[in-house]
Amino acid sequence: MLGILKQLALMNATRKVLKISSKELAEKINQSLQTAARKLKELEDEGLIERMLYKDGQYIVITEKGKDLLYKEYLDYKRIFEGEDAIILKGRVFGGVGEGAYYVSLEGYRKQFIEKLGFDPYPGTLNLKIPKEQMFFRKRLDQEEGITIEGFSTEDRTFGDVKAFKCRIDGMEGAIVIPQRTHYPADVLEVIAPVKLREHLGLEDGDTVEIEVIL
Amino acid sequence: MLGILKQLALMNATRKVLKISSKELAEKINQSLQTAARKLKELEDEGLIERMLYKDGQYIVITEKGKDLLYKEYLDYKRIFEGEDAIILKGRVFGGVGEGAYYVSLEGYRKQFIEKLGFDPYPGTLNLKIPKEQMFFRKRLDQEEGITIEGFSTEDRTFGDVKAFKCRIDGMEGAIVIPQRTHYPADVLEVIAPVKLREHLGLEDGDTVEIEVIL
Repeated sequence: MLGILKQLALMNATRKVLKISSKELAEKINQSLQTAARKLKELEDEGLIERMLYKDGQYIVITEKGKDLLYKEYLDYKRIFEGEDAIILKGRVFGGVGEGAYYVSLEGYRKQFIEKLGFDPYPGTLNLKIPKEQMFFRKRLDQEEGITIEGFSTEDRTFGDVKAFKCRIDGMEGAIVIPQRTHYPADVLEVIAPVKLREHLGLEDGDTVEIEVIL
Repeated sequence: MLGILKQLALMNATRKVLKISSKELAEKINQSLQTAARKLKELEDEGLIERMLYKDGQYIVITEKGKDLLYKEYLDYKRIFEGEDAIILKGRVFGGVGEGAYYVSLEGYRKQFIEKLGFDPYPGTLNLKIPKEQMFFRKRLDQEEGITIEGFSTEDRTFGDVKAFKCRIDGMEGAIVIPQRTHYPADVLEVIAPVKLREHLGLEDGDTVEIEVIL
């Protein structure tokens, strides 16, 4: 019923009196004449449209009540699609191998973190294990471009590119960092932040945290 | 089916994996458990959601295909509600009593037309008879505030307030003017414009014109 009301609105029936037969409308919405006629009757009975029959045909207009109902829908969709494109991932804190501190504080990465992420990271990472039911969005991160932290070489070693995503974790700003040649399996994520998250958020191994990742 | 998909989106299922039982969802959308379960099944079969069952419960996430469908709806509603608030009225040109020229050119009104409507009106009005099926929006004009052209007094007479609405008539700017103590019945409207509309648009008595009225 909402579908047909929306169709009428798309034909401008919130702004003008529309001359349309039930048959024409049925064709527009790809339904039988009977279905269209019944739905129009329902819309009329609920005061969502006004319908006038004259000898030259049927006239339809959407009432204020009908417009209000459509507007409520509009606001719902607006709520769904407006605002930044972010996803929410859950993960479980675990110890990790302790290499994070070393990589994060390498000057070649650090200066790019400051420049591209907007903060000077605490030298260390918070490691999260992503439970299997959360993998839908974990995989999204592989498809998204993210922010590229470029690799570099020192005299005796090469460090690869890192893909980063800004994120919020319990209101704190931070970033997910994904080394492109990673030593971690896909169900592990590393988070960096200007502070030591573990201490700052009072986290212990096994705790579950929610991260809002900005795409 | 779209309703339940929208509900899931409002619960953030485009952005996170949602843990929700069919029973909880049924309560949310005020439908029976059977109906909710059947609709979820349909959404899943059409690839609009992904559903995962683990021992701790049901997880649901909206797929890209599902998000695309919702986005299409969003764009429809946006088309309906964005843009200026205007209505479209139809009327039939008729001769009128010829008093328009006198009133429009009265300096007390004219200077306000220039100031409040943004044009110096041709001294005359185009008179339109509004057919009965168009009265829905004609009545709207009585409820809307419009632009007030204030009345004034000369030595020997008092001229009342006039309510005006900017409008477009075949692409030409103009305004509907409704004297607050009118000598015309409610199904008659007078339109003024910077030019003589009748000539400019090649109108004759009995012709039907469409006016877009800005509220």
